[in-house]
Amino acid sequence: MNITIIGTGSMGQALSSLVAKGGHDVQLLGSADQGTEATGDVVVLAVPYPALREIVEQRGASLAGRIVVDITNPVDFATFDSLVVPADSSAAAELAAALPESHVLKAFNTTFGSTLTSGAVGDVPTTVLIAGDDSTAKATLADVVTAGGLQAVDAGSLSRARELESIAFLQMTLAAAEKISWSGGLALVS
Amino acid sequence: MNITIIGTGSMGQALSSLVAKGGHDVQLLGSADQGTEATGDVVVLAVPYPALREIVEQRGASLAGRIVVDITNPVDFATFDSLVVPADSSAAAELAAALPESHVLKAFNTTFGSTLTSGAVGDVPTTVLIAGDDSTAKATLADVVTAGGLQAVDAGSLSRARELESIAFLQMTLAAAEKISWSGGLALVS
Repeated sequence: MNITIIGTGSMGQALSSLVAKGGHDVQLLGSADQGTEATGDVVVLAVPYPALREIVEQRGASLAGRIVVDITNPVDFATFDSLVVPADSSAAAELAAALPESHVLKAFNTTFGSTLTSGAVGDVPTTVLIAGDDSTAKATLADVVTAGGLQAVDAGSLSRARELESIAFLQMTLAAAEKISWSGGLALVS
Repeated sequence: MNITIIGTGSMGQALSSLVAKGGHDVQLLGSADQGTEATGDVVVLAVPYPALREIVEQRGASLAGRIVVDITNPVDFATFDSLVVPADSSAAAELAAALPESHVLKAFNTTFGSTLTSGAVGDVPTTVLIAGDDSTAKATLADVVTAGGLQAVDAGSLSRARELESIAFLQMTLAAAEKISWSGGLALVS
């Protein structure tokens, strides 16, 4: 499979390694590649939340029919006390509304970059929680995750993205307050 | 210290054991004890969310000046698809508004009962996340938790109860869907 990753920051790089490890082809697109078409069957938007709007404007039409993965955490970094999306919504719900022809999934937002790379949160294997309304799309992404050596768990419908974004937000506040490290976090124990 | 636990279900029993293990006195009150005054310095409401309203009506005035711990998860059990509190609120925020003279904390809602008793989520020591606006109250409860052999982490202001309730809700949906067991969950790794 061909996976496009838009974003070359630490998460984009960690995701590129994960995908490549599973034997898939990676197309990594950075900010200088705005004119390059995303060719992946799966397109991962490994960008900060505020960048989603521009990607939708530039690439929205071309993403129709494809699996689009939102990894963002819409944290209000000015206050670090709330998210910037409405309380009854999520970044993923907003993205799905903006890309009605795409299969939007929420994933990778609850795993710090280092835990994607190391494959573990402390001694617990890293689990990627995946939320979305299309079961086939979720299974496709889960296969990519497990091929790369991590665990994947279906976290339910796309409405569960709200909880996934809450988990990540709390995890980030705990790391910022030095209650945990950026290689720790909330690990899923089965 | 004297700790009152209202509620004799599995969580009330697990919390009684935890508190007693730390050498504190436990007053355990069940539904037949509505006429008995809660005497604890800390009063833990180990009841389902819908029971909070009645406790506030019956005991609200007597809880003034005391530490009151909300452990509830206000899940809509009819749909298992949302919480019954407004999206921008939490059970703990509602309780704090109803008990303005008490020091309301959110705690124990992210730990399944079995992990309170066993002291571990899988191989990870059980951590009790505590949110609240009164630092002294949080430190008092943290001491009770650590005396009982568990870890305690200050999760921030009472507004973080929203995230703690989201974490617990997702955890419950995963257990109900048999993606994890009721002795697993999201374990905090430092």
